[in-house]
Amino acid sequence: MHLNGYKINNPTLLARISHEEVEHLFRGYGWTPFFVEGSDYDSMHQAMAATVEQCVSDIRQAQRDARSSGVAARPRWPMIVLRTPKGWSAPAEVVGHRLEGSWRAHQVPMADVRKKPEQLALLEKWMRAQKPEELFDSNGRLIPELKELAPAGTRRMSANPHANGGLIKKPLRLPDFRGYGAKVDKPGQIEAENTRPLGAFLRDVMKSNMERFRVFGPDENTSNKLQDIYEVSKKFWIAEYFPEDADGGELATDGRVMEMLSEHTMEGMLEGYLLTGRHGFFSTYEAFVHVIDSMFNQHAKWLSICNNLSWREEIASLNLLITSTVWRQDHNGFTHQDPGFLDVVVNKSAAVTRIYLPPDVNCLLSVADHCLRSENYINVIVSDKQMHLQYMSMDAAIKHCTKGIGIWEWASSDKGDEPDLVMASAGDIPTQEALAATALLREEFPGLRIRYINVVDLFKLQPPTEHPHGLTDRDFDSLFTVDKPVIFNFHGYPWLIHRLAYRRTNHSNMHVRGYKEKGNINTPMELAINNEIDRFSLAIDAIDRTPKLQKIGAQAKERYRDLQIDCRNYAYEHGIDNPEIVNWRWPY
Amino acid sequence: MHLNGYKINNPTLLARISHEEVEHLFRGYGWTPFFVEGSDYDSMHQAMAATVEQCVSDIRQAQRDARSSGVAARPRWPMIVLRTPKGWSAPAEVVGHRLEGSWRAHQVPMADVRKKPEQLALLEKWMRAQKPEELFDSNGRLIPELKELAPAGTRRMSANPHANGGLIKKPLRLPDFRGYGAKVDKPGQIEAENTRPLGAFLRDVMKSNMERFRVFGPDENTSNKLQDIYEVSKKFWIAEYFPEDADGGELATDGRVMEMLSEHTMEGMLEGYLLTGRHGFFSTYEAFVHVIDSMFNQHAKWLSICNNLSWREEIASLNLLITSTVWRQDHNGFTHQDPGFLDVVVNKSAAVTRIYLPPDVNCLLSVADHCLRSENYINVIVSDKQMHLQYMSMDAAIKHCTKGIGIWEWASSDKGDEPDLVMASAGDIPTQEALAATALLREEFPGLRIRYINVVDLFKLQPPTEHPHGLTDRDFDSLFTVDKPVIFNFHGYPWLIHRLAYRRTNHSNMHVRGYKEKGNINTPMELAINNEIDRFSLAIDAIDRTPKLQKIGAQAKERYRDLQIDCRNYAYEHGIDNPEIVNWRWPY
Repeated sequence: MHLNGYKINNPTLLARISHEEVEHLFRGYGWTPFFVEGSDYDSMHQAMAATVEQCVSDIRQAQRDARSSGVAARPRWPMIVLRTPKGWSAPAEVVGHRLEGSWRAHQVPMADVRKKPEQLALLEKWMRAQKPEELFDSNGRLIPELKELAPAGTRRMSANPHANGGLIKKPLRLPDFRGYGAKVDKPGQIEAENTRPLGAFLRDVMKSNMERFRVFGPDENTSNKLQDIYEVSKKFWIAEYFPEDADGGELATDGRVMEMLSEHTMEGMLEGYLLTGRHGFFSTYEAFVHVIDSMFNQHAKWLSICNNLSWREEIASLNLLITSTVWRQDHNGFTHQDPGFLDVVVNKSAAVTRIYLPPDVNCLLSVADHCLRSENYINVIVSDKQMHLQYMSMDAAIKHCTKGIGIWEWASSDKGDEPDLVMASAGDIPTQEALAATALLREEFPGLRIRYINVVDLFKLQPPTEHPHGLTDRDFDSLFTVDKPVIFNFHGYPWLIHRLAYRRTNHSNMHVRGYKEKGNINTPMELAINNEIDRFSLAIDAIDRTPKLQKIGAQAKERYRDLQIDCRNYAYEHGIDNPEIVNWRWPY
Repeated sequence: MHLNGYKINNPTLLARISHEEVEHLFRGYGWTPFFVEGSDYDSMHQAMAATVEQCVSDIRQAQRDARSSGVAARPRWPMIVLRTPKGWSAPAEVVGHRLEGSWRAHQVPMADVRKKPEQLALLEKWMRAQKPEELFDSNGRLIPELKELAPAGTRRMSANPHANGGLIKKPLRLPDFRGYGAKVDKPGQIEAENTRPLGAFLRDVMKSNMERFRVFGPDENTSNKLQDIYEVSKKFWIAEYFPEDADGGELATDGRVMEMLSEHTMEGMLEGYLLTGRHGFFSTYEAFVHVIDSMFNQHAKWLSICNNLSWREEIASLNLLITSTVWRQDHNGFTHQDPGFLDVVVNKSAAVTRIYLPPDVNCLLSVADHCLRSENYINVIVSDKQMHLQYMSMDAAIKHCTKGIGIWEWASSDKGDEPDLVMASAGDIPTQEALAATALLREEFPGLRIRYINVVDLFKLQPPTEHPHGLTDRDFDSLFTVDKPVIFNFHGYPWLIHRLAYRRTNHSNMHVRGYKEKGNINTPMELAINNEIDRFSLAIDAIDRTPKLQKIGAQAKERYRDLQIDCRNYAYEHGIDNPEIVNWRWPY
């Protein structure tokens, strides 16, 4: 029993809220409440039947009005407020304590029935008051005239196909995502807003699936650069419409974009939409996706149990785009820096959880296409919305995302040889910094053999016994070596990588950098330096960890430290990053 | 701008909600709304002044009524609803687009001021409309008569001592927690509800601090076995009171126990209470503490920043008791099994986070006393509310909790020797099972040298460079050895232990068991077996990992597997656990 999040711990609370207050509350929320109240069964029975009749007829009238006028507006839907005593029909008192209408009706109402004959008699009297002899035949079966009252076939609540949404789900008609990509001739030369082309792709997904696809978000979709969607469908809006709304308001009564700054409301709507056989896409600010941690947990538990129920058909995956990420909170600052949702996700069943960190536009499109086609998963995609360097042509991106992890040969200098050092990254900004560190090292130490690895599918790091996407030890050892230093630049909290990879042969040589709660209102470079994921910290780390560099790297380390200080000073003075950093391009 | 969680993404939403609906909504929540609406500055100015006057006088009247009658009731507090155009005073239009009163007032209102002289002129006109020459003198200083309007001293909002609560905080007067303990003569012989004596302790904390201490909880405190508190203060309740409430309702208008099934409301109230210089204690079901993940994150960020502000005085710690834990969800089942809040906690600054897993009553009391005395932390205490074995006398418990981690000599058989095997545990049920496994092994292999370690303070596992509580490597290596197998039975998700201990010398020999999302409506033993934290799985694991047992342990392993199957069969048939398991006692 809840009323706006208020459980009746003392279960007679509802009885204490005045009729007037309940009426105000629901009218304030736009409903028309009908009250059925009391404790006399026969009069309540009549009143309830009449009220349901009235409400159904009001609903039908609202539907007729909308259909005949062609104008969708917000009717004041009827709602029924039924108030009966807590534990209605129970004995008024048991051993001198109030039972019916009191909090005790929420507990075991008679605790000593086995030992105390007078309690057993009271229980029998209570049960007999239901008149079982009128309801069941001599074999204990429900009498036919009652049985007939129950609906048949798919009118039964449990057999309603909307309660097993996979039964009525139709696959999405998907346009070819390859048509939305960035043209990348050479890695690391041009920049693009990573989520913007995704918006164009989602627009066309929407256009081809106007009855089974919606986009949900607590933030303005425009803020997350997904605004191209509005070309085919607006924000759902059935309140008053002002003339100036036509100029950029993007509101429509038949809008398929659901926007409300309430993460949990959006998540709840999306879950209901998926469970009833439709498809959806959710985007949200990274730091605030923690608001739905608990809902995510329950949906993941539900999906994992469904995998064991043969009669439950597969539903569409829950697709979460985590954007406006920790590394680009240039004016929002510390409160908006929290990449910890991934730590919540990895605790849930490997059968239903997937995490992707596409480094650029083409990878993001390839991942998004895959997620929209999948079933029964929760897909978490981490991708920032700002301008970022582009690395992969569409063909290369598809191969990279299909493998989920791979060597970037163009960034590496180990050319088929055993590397001296492995540089790895997962996430957009960490990838840029790890590449820049690689470039610094290659320039400084031309003979150095660096292998560059990028991870898109985070669960590749776990053993295959723990997650179906896990790399075999043979593949992992071959990529990360069994004894060379690995510098891993990660988007989230660094310990997550250790947690996933602790069983790997070379784990003790893996040095992970990530977010360590060292933030403020920083420029991107300042924030990277504070948390040691910047190019200079990585290059210094590489020198410290690589035997052949330890003795010859002192001067380079000094220079990198000087450059770090230059970056900090520039940011402090100008409030933005040094143009050399902002305009950095991959030099090879 | 929020209205019940609804951000005005389109910022003119509030203008579209009818006066009538707003009135209903706030009346439904028990307020009396006063409206000040419009866009004419002078008339609004007058109306606002008159409305504030009216509201202040209504508040004073309600206070006088309550004080003179001595009856605390719920007045309908006045509230002011001020509605003005979004971006009030901005130009009505900029380059043909509506600005004042539209969503554009939430953006950069004029983007091209530097390049377009006509926009600069418009900006100047707007700014000049504020009449700066009447507000500032020729030096740009605010004129004296305006300056005088601002309050002085502690009437300034920023200097109000309630905004820097540490200034007015007084320490709690704490009774001696030793007086509430369980009498434990010999480890592992008697059982007690672990949280029940804590309730008695909190009762007396309350009694001695009736103006500065409150207990908060989304659940019934009785359900969490803290009901002794009601002997000195009831649940806060100012709605209608029924005669039968006197019989067990535990309601009072001056109650200091805050109960509402709304984790985030309770957490918000507690944060406000602490920030204004008071002390509190929060208890909640483990699985649902995830509802406040996001609030925890922000409070932890806030506390960690405060550590860098010399003028901000220390406030009382936020004390969270996580109870009704994963391992005892005998009838609630899978949805109530989620020990993952700890994974969220460890991501935040080590300067403000503390995690304790006391295994019994006396340890819980010692930990709780410590937490109530501490400042500027978030203390997370994990302790189940059911009947559990008791291990430590009060003296032993105090020593154990002060160290935070320690060898239980009475459970060990390595008597000053190098052990063959280290058995470790953290948490109540995992400790019981690890001890039972130790007993099985000692019985089966009398010459085996087992060292038993219990962890109360989880951060002891991290290196001291990562957390101030971290054990030095020397201490850690001496406890856990540098090369012997360690079986670690953990309360939460097992990977968390790897994440904390991955840098330790002997990490590659640490084998952690914990919750792996293998649950249903299980008996405690079934659930333990499903997740392999049960005594038999641990004993089998120990045989597999200990070189001297590998060749001789096959028969014991078979027997343990048979006993496991017996346990499963018994639970399936009877719905409860085998009495041999339920009544198990430490045998040495």
